[in-house]
Amino acid sequence: MIKVGVIGALGKMGSEVVKAVINNNETKGEMILVCAVDKFKTGENVWGNVAIESDIEKALEVNKPDVVVDFTQPALVFENTKKYINSKVKSVIGTTGLSAEQIKELEKLSKENNTGCFIAPNFTTGAVLMMMFSKMASKYFDNAEILEFHHNQKKDAPSGTAVKTAQMMAEINPDFTKGNVPETELIQGSRGGNFNENGKGNIRIHSIRMPGFVASQEVIFGAPGQTLKIRHDSINRECYMGGVELAIKHVFNNNEFIYGLENIL
Amino acid sequence: MIKVGVIGALGKMGSEVVKAVINNNETKGEMILVCAVDKFKTGENVWGNVAIESDIEKALEVNKPDVVVDFTQPALVFENTKKYINSKVKSVIGTTGLSAEQIKELEKLSKENNTGCFIAPNFTTGAVLMMMFSKMASKYFDNAEILEFHHNQKKDAPSGTAVKTAQMMAEINPDFTKGNVPETELIQGSRGGNFNENGKGNIRIHSIRMPGFVASQEVIFGAPGQTLKIRHDSINRECYMGGVELAIKHVFNNNEFIYGLENIL
Amino acid sequence: MIKVGVIGALGKMGSEVVKAVINNNETKGEMILVCAVDKFKTGENVWGNVAIESDIEKALEVNKPDVVVDFTQPALVFENTKKYINSKVKSVIGTTGLSAEQIKELEKLSKENNTGCFIAPNFTTGAVLMMMFSKMASKYFDNAEILEFHHNQKKDAPSGTAVKTAQMMAEINPDFTKGNVPETELIQGSRGGNFNENGKGNIRIHSIRMPGFVASQEVIFGAPGQTLKIRHDSINRECYMGGVELAIKHVFNNNEFIYGLENIL
Amino acid sequence: MIKVGVIGALGKMGSEVVKAVINNNETKGEMILVCAVDKFKTGENVWGNVAIESDIEKALEVNKPDVVVDFTQPALVFENTKKYINSKVKSVIGTTGLSAEQIKELEKLSKENNTGCFIAPNFTTGAVLMMMFSKMASKYFDNAEILEFHHNQKKDAPSGTAVKTAQMMAEINPDFTKGNVPETELIQGSRGGNFNENGKGNIRIHSIRMPGFVASQEVIFGAPGQTLKIRHDSINRECYMGGVELAIKHVFNNNEFIYGLENIL
Repeated sequence: MIKVGVIGALGKMGSEVVKAVINNNETKGEMILVCAVDKFKTGENVWGNVAIESDIEKALEVNKPDVVVDFTQPALVFENTKKYINSKVKSVIGTTGLSAEQIKELEKLSKENNTGCFIAPNFTTGAVLMMMFSKMASKYFDNAEILEFHHNQKKDAPSGTAVKTAQMMAEINPDFTKGNVPETELIQGSRGGNFNENGKGNIRIHSIRMPGFVASQEVIFGAPGQTLKIRHDSINRECYMGGVELAIKHVFNNNEFIYGLENIL
Repeated sequence: MIKVGVIGALGKMGSEVVKAVINNNETKGEMILVCAVDKFKTGENVWGNVAIESDIEKALEVNKPDVVVDFTQPALVFENTKKYINSKVKSVIGTTGLSAEQIKELEKLSKENNTGCFIAPNFTTGAVLMMMFSKMASKYFDNAEILEFHHNQKKDAPSGTAVKTAQMMAEINPDFTKGNVPETELIQGSRGGNFNENGKGNIRIHSIRMPGFVASQEVIFGAPGQTLKIRHDSINRECYMGGVELAIKHVFNNNEFIYGLENIL
Repeated sequence: MIKVGVIGALGKMGSEVVKAVINNNETKGEMILVCAVDKFKTGENVWGNVAIESDIEKALEVNKPDVVVDFTQPALVFENTKKYINSKVKSVIGTTGLSAEQIKELEKLSKENNTGCFIAPNFTTGAVLMMMFSKMASKYFDNAEILEFHHNQKKDAPSGTAVKTAQMMAEINPDFTKGNVPETELIQGSRGGNFNENGKGNIRIHSIRMPGFVASQEVIFGAPGQTLKIRHDSINRECYMGGVELAIKHVFNNNEFIYGLENIL
Repeated sequence: MIKVGVIGALGKMGSEVVKAVINNNETKGEMILVCAVDKFKTGENVWGNVAIESDIEKALEVNKPDVVVDFTQPALVFENTKKYINSKVKSVIGTTGLSAEQIKELEKLSKENNTGCFIAPNFTTGAVLMMMFSKMASKYFDNAEILEFHHNQKKDAPSGTAVKTAQMMAEINPDFTKGNVPETELIQGSRGGNFNENGKGNIRIHSIRMPGFVASQEVIFGAPGQTLKIRHDSINRECYMGGVELAIKHVFNNNEFIYGLENIL
């Protein structure tokens, strides 16, 4: 049974991780919660007999988790992760906030300490599979567009997932508007945003924003007489937990540094 | 039994109308083909014992159809329709090519001659219902966007149907982006084209173009915790025939001038 | 400004109603929370300066709400509603648990006391519109089937909403499998459940059950060359709030007994 | 440039293949039509300067095609294919009518003659990708159901594609109803047909039948908080042509016996 510690255990994501670990313990018996760290409610037994601790290093030392999970704020994650590796505790880190250099530094540290570390910006299995399948389908379809749907409190369009999907597709096929006639936009923007990096892609991305969506994406491939649609819908934070469990088990069984859930699917 | 004549009977739409009338005759017995006019194959019995004729006025005089159906070219339709009305033959006219003035003139002529005439730019029952339902839902939702999907040989975006739908929705609700945070387009156009007429609408329209689609549209309404989607897909010209049959029966039974299928649904 | 009281204010639905009333007050200023009743936390100021009370009748007397909202348990709702009417306080009642006789009795009481009362089993605007549109489309399509999607903790199939939708459609069109060839089920049940009441309907209903859905339904209409799809997705309890607000305003402005949200859309 | 012969060139599929080869020649220049065989219209130049021939063996001898494509009737295909192999002409064969023994015999013959032969029951790239992706996703999701949509002239339910998809998924995951509560069908069949072979699968299949669909399938995977949907829509026979072109190029470049498009995607 994998001994798991959760850092930031009272946060929105952290508390979901705690629930998922406890649920795994009850239904599959693969893992057990051994410590929970947060700056609030120190000493309280929020879940069963695990009291909340406030000092990360002490918690690691005392409870000896096999794997810690950290979904705290971007500002903390980098320093925290160094602590885990230096303490030779394997970790699963969820963040979109690390720079390429920080990731490189953590990879180096992980190897020097021979301590596995799994970092990913997205733990939603279905979303990562959607991206992988879209890349694979790109070999066989000359036309594709991306639709992404989010709540209306999201500021940027298109979403990071849509851009990443487009990048993966453009590696395989440089032009997804093959055979299109020259087009006129009677209302500017109606044909969407044109993703094109280094002359590759020509993938139209359409961002829809309204209440009633959390995060959805549909990639549509077209060919004469047929369309193939790959769609993912997230409706709440539980969607991350399948990926977190996979990552915990992977880093426990394989002592590697890994960036991105796609590398273990 | 309604006696039907088809003008432009060998055209793409005309030949579908002929098939639909013959099929109605065989399965429901509501109508019968009495004449077929085209400039090609004069005298040939393409369908049963109805030989193709080349002269419209003579065909009307000899065969005395109750209703003629005309889906010929925009350039011909206006003059043809005047002939039908002046000959006191009821007609069903399919075209997007008439100007507002031409429609007015035909309405006047129809009333003076007391001869019913049914004109519509779109005979697809499902598409017209989609527009009507979208208008009705607009009263109860503060957020909505329109997605329309066509083959990649279509030049203009957005489609006429999408614009008409947006106009109908904007009559009911002046702003479909209520509560949206200020948005930044990282790729220009990704939020779609903003439909806004006379300060009303703010409906984002997204046009998708690729092979594998004929004509589809989805109107999405969002509110906290829910979305309502109204979608129509056309896959071939048969989709017009339900509306054409309705129109033939309506103009036969009601001696009126009508513009638009929505007025009889 | 409508003075609103919430009964069962700490319940899952009750607390959403409280949030919705407070949010309406802040953003639209149409209503204000004047009292909140629950059996727990008596005296606590959970929301602003409204303390939780435990006695319904006293709360009505002291705070004089224009409208009370009650989404408590089926076992309590009937008696509670009689209290509201007898106290001449208008009410909005959310429950699927009342019998036809109980509804009749409440209607009689409401009229005798000249006190408006609005009862509905479903307050989701989008779901009710989906049913209404499906009924309307039934006049123009000879083929339709219903798909409904729920989480895998739901025991019964099909859902109540699917059955009600089918009943509304069957009123308009007695057979939605027109023209289908005789069918063989190679795996029993693959063609779904056949809704047929009093020889009317023949609407196939397909119930999908898995985690990742809360409550969704899609009604698909087919005709040669076209399909029309009306789909509703609920992802959390917020979906009820639009309908609750409409009902509060309706019963405040119209002193009637009404059963069913469809009667005010 | 690959020299292609089409057998059954006037058939529904054969004439699409002819069109696809000619179109490939004009737009990509990878292949050229060198002969067309059918029992009708012998000697007529239906396409450019290729006259229709009636004798297969003579046509092969005279025109020396690199690859022949045969989508004729099941009753003919087996004997035809033996002719192609014995004449040492590579072939692409489209049929669902061959028995396992016949396929084995053709494989043996192909190897003995060192002559490539590509046989597939389904040439639709998107449909085959849908099946492959569904198999892959089955490793990461514990819940899934299959929806398939066809026109109402289809006799059997579920479709062969749905059953094949379920078989591929069941290889990976023996139970796709994990965690479902015990269910009651208020209308029999509403939960669909339960695919289960050798105690594996438990995949509910739902077959929808109505005009307006040609052939569509959606595989839905569910997990807490998320769903992944893989959907394929065919709207006419053109959908096969991408796969036929891939097969022609593959068998030309790789002198193998292959059964199933999935083996070259």
